[in-house]
Amino acid sequence: MPSYSIIENFEVHKNNRFLEIAEALKPELLHKEIKAEKEIMVGKDRQMRTVITEEHPIENLYTKSLKRDDTVFVDFGDHAVGYVTLELSKTGSHQDAPVYFYLKFGERLEEMTDKTADYDGWLSRGWIQEEYIHVDVLPAKVKLPRRYSFRYMELRVIDTSAKFQLKIDGISCDTVSAVDMESVKPVDFGDSLLNQIDLVSRKTLKECMQDVFEDGPKRDRRMWLGDLRLQARANYYTFKNYDLAKRCMYIFAGLLFNEGKLSACVFTEPEMEPDDTYLLDYALFFSSVLLDYYEATDDLETLRDLYDVAIDQIRIAMTQLNEKNVVEDLGDAFWCFLDWGDGLNKQAGATAVLIYCIRYGIRLAKILDKQEDISWLEEKQAMLKEAAVKEFWDEELGMFVSGPDRQASWATQIWMILARVFDKETNCKLIHHVMEVNPRIRMVTPYMYHHYIDALIRCDEKELALEEMKRYWGEMIRDGADTFWELYNPYNREESPYGSSMVNSYCHAWSCTPTYFLRKFYMDNEK
Amino acid sequence: MPSYSIIENFEVHKNNRFLEIAEALKPELLHKEIKAEKEIMVGKDRQMRTVITEEHPIENLYTKSLKRDDTVFVDFGDHAVGYVTLELSKTGSHQDAPVYFYLKFGERLEEMTDKTADYDGWLSRGWIQEEYIHVDVLPAKVKLPRRYSFRYMELRVIDTSAKFQLKIDGISCDTVSAVDMESVKPVDFGDSLLNQIDLVSRKTLKECMQDVFEDGPKRDRRMWLGDLRLQARANYYTFKNYDLAKRCMYIFAGLLFNEGKLSACVFTEPEMEPDDTYLLDYALFFSSVLLDYYEATDDLETLRDLYDVAIDQIRIAMTQLNEKNVVEDLGDAFWCFLDWGDGLNKQAGATAVLIYCIRYGIRLAKILDKQEDISWLEEKQAMLKEAAVKEFWDEELGMFVSGPDRQASWATQIWMILARVFDKETNCKLIHHVMEVNPRIRMVTPYMYHHYIDALIRCDEKELALEEMKRYWGEMIRDGADTFWELYNPYNREESPYGSSMVNSYCHAWSCTPTYFLRKFYMDNEK
Repeated sequence: MPSYSIIENFEVHKNNRFLEIAEALKPELLHKEIKAEKEIMVGKDRQMRTVITEEHPIENLYTKSLKRDDTVFVDFGDHAVGYVTLELSKTGSHQDAPVYFYLKFGERLEEMTDKTADYDGWLSRGWIQEEYIHVDVLPAKVKLPRRYSFRYMELRVIDTSAKFQLKIDGISCDTVSAVDMESVKPVDFGDSLLNQIDLVSRKTLKECMQDVFEDGPKRDRRMWLGDLRLQARANYYTFKNYDLAKRCMYIFAGLLFNEGKLSACVFTEPEMEPDDTYLLDYALFFSSVLLDYYEATDDLETLRDLYDVAIDQIRIAMTQLNEKNVVEDLGDAFWCFLDWGDGLNKQAGATAVLIYCIRYGIRLAKILDKQEDISWLEEKQAMLKEAAVKEFWDEELGMFVSGPDRQASWATQIWMILARVFDKETNCKLIHHVMEVNPRIRMVTPYMYHHYIDALIRCDEKELALEEMKRYWGEMIRDGADTFWELYNPYNREESPYGSSMVNSYCHAWSCTPTYFLRKFYMDNEK
Repeated sequence: MPSYSIIENFEVHKNNRFLEIAEALKPELLHKEIKAEKEIMVGKDRQMRTVITEEHPIENLYTKSLKRDDTVFVDFGDHAVGYVTLELSKTGSHQDAPVYFYLKFGERLEEMTDKTADYDGWLSRGWIQEEYIHVDVLPAKVKLPRRYSFRYMELRVIDTSAKFQLKIDGISCDTVSAVDMESVKPVDFGDSLLNQIDLVSRKTLKECMQDVFEDGPKRDRRMWLGDLRLQARANYYTFKNYDLAKRCMYIFAGLLFNEGKLSACVFTEPEMEPDDTYLLDYALFFSSVLLDYYEATDDLETLRDLYDVAIDQIRIAMTQLNEKNVVEDLGDAFWCFLDWGDGLNKQAGATAVLIYCIRYGIRLAKILDKQEDISWLEEKQAMLKEAAVKEFWDEELGMFVSGPDRQASWATQIWMILARVFDKETNCKLIHHVMEVNPRIRMVTPYMYHHYIDALIRCDEKELALEEMKRYWGEMIRDGADTFWELYNPYNREESPYGSSMVNSYCHAWSCTPTYFLRKFYMDNEK
């Protein structure tokens, strides 16, 4: 089901001082040239999974004379984000016609066998990383002007002429990021899979750290507030690029819209502008993002600047309560995120996120000694916890339920645990009960899995959390991930919220948090 | 049948002095911006011919919001050669995905309904003027880097997103040519169709006058020697750009290959280089090109520089005679052009072209007073005329025949007339006989029709020549030509030597010569 929002009478209230602060913090991107590593042949195995059937040194490709309909595949050896240059020449007689070829870039091997013509998703087909290119004069150094996020490349010759053939003399990529992998020391977690998970997490985060914390360098490229929260957390334990986090907070706070709401995401081009999308949970998370930043930096000035925006989001959310003092259920509209996946009712989860963020609001207010706010927030927190139990707790099921169909989902239980609606002991019982019952409405995204791991750790189940991380992110690595994917359902590799996995992002910021957990909670134990 | 040549052990003998002279004569191209004129709708009529079904001011297009699969057509109002710029923006919410669209440029309306996927010709598919373009950030001024030759443009939106639509705010073309239409005064030939033929001829020539005399600005773009001969002739009676003609002669003469042969065509990029294609008739024509230039300019220095190259081509051709003193028949190989069209045997025509060019050689030799050359050339001319009659004349048919099947074609008769193998009176009888008999192997190209018109005029049939010009080139105009086509068969609009009319050139230099005939032979009469 397509999920997007279009707000009528959308009015942006820009705070130019905030936007100027953000602009001044714009990072100088680091460039690093890498070269294509191997020529590969790609096919399908008996289970119809895309596999590499042959591989050769890249020099093998550079000896070939390519003509009409010849197709070659290239492996860069690792995930890359950047600008590709092809060095092309010809064999045979003088080039007497334009050479015309098709290029496709893929993060995952499957993208090399996906047929674009079959795409029937509801996101733009424009996200598929393909190009049709004419080169009128060979030899030529063709620097592609668009940025791609990829590991694999297909080149199919549409045509040369009867008199000449295309020759490839070099393929390289000018990779870009705000940070450098080498700036973070590897840690030995005493387990090669955990070490690998930590590495892939950092790689994923690095690829998404560009002018801002991007959602995914292949698709979206803009900045989502909920994703920023997780990226920034991982960043504080790895690259420690505090300026980029600060810049992103000022961008969001500088682009409020109607009623002072924070947008769920912002565009940075052609100029800074918020999307006309409001997600209740994402807007509320600003208090959490701000506190995390303050705790990492002690930057009181930024906290003072942005405090009001954070607290305002709670005030705005409070206007969306129904007569039972819980968040009004807006059904299938795109009003609160929580997780992808069909059928998840968000009413209880949204209420839990509100309670969770009030806790962060209180902590912010205490730092600035805002007594009035503290009282108000504490009062509302108590009221909401009471209402949540009254409205959503199902004694018989032993779980929270949500919406008119009283749906018990994983997401609802996890957010109620993180909201600390119950005391720690009850929460621990609840998490074990959920694992036992395994409600039908499961978690789909690494984003939701993050909160699951967080909940386990908060319930003192650190070993279990580690096992679950290995089970979920570790399985993704076994499934071929060089960077962590936007979506991962171990039982359905083609799962997509967009109607087609072709436009899924396979390097997605919200999936990078194992490095945060490992480095925050497991370093002393494991070393 | 594919016709091309690949010469093994191809060795180029560059004459750097000649190439430097050519380089110094490189024209500064004139630029003129034009704007798209109309939005049109394109469909098929009952005879399945492509037609314009609706037309609107271009402003109509600029109000539209375009989304996935929307297709629009644009008419620039006249043929253009240049660089297109699209001014694009969006309607709806902020652009949240790349906009992806397809562009196609066509000289003829049919190109707007041709399906590229159906192309099965033997020339490169790369000649079809189409592009697939992603624009990541709107608004954008997209200046396409490749030069197109077109009047019509299709834009099909492959995708936007659910949240925004593509808007076109302007479409323009920076047209280029070495010459300016306004520099030639129109002449009133007392007949609106003739005036129109003169105009379209000049337009065709202008579009092909770029860095060199191009063959066709859509396809080929290089310079062919046989085509240059006709272009230069038309140029001397219109634009009078003598430097461009001189430049082209020096390029050809500066790029001889094995045995001092002139290539049938040369490439100018990435650097000057001859194609590995030798066509006997094209190489021989250099004497004609040189004499035409000298007569137009009195430039004796150039004549002295290039004389040897011209005479050498005759010497080389003389080595290709068989024991009967006529040119050896090389059958279906691509060895002599004369005309496109399946099945034309070229032995007799090639012999006639040799005789014709010896006449030009003698005139060149006389200007420079080269007595030895004059004697040798006159002797060979006499020998060849005798051999041609003996070998090719069929008394019973009253026509010349060619090849093992004794084929009597239009092309053979016309070249024998132009070669003046017989006296004028006999030639006149022959041309009438041919018209009466109408041999099955007819003329296909305007290039061959040029020689037919030339033959009629040489036989004092000026009125008939005028009627034939009106019938052939006039019919092309009635068939929608804004510039004259490479190929024109009034009985088959889709005729193509390349297996598909999609890659035919519809602005082709060799078709521009009616303006030469009109202005050389008909101006005093008609004024």
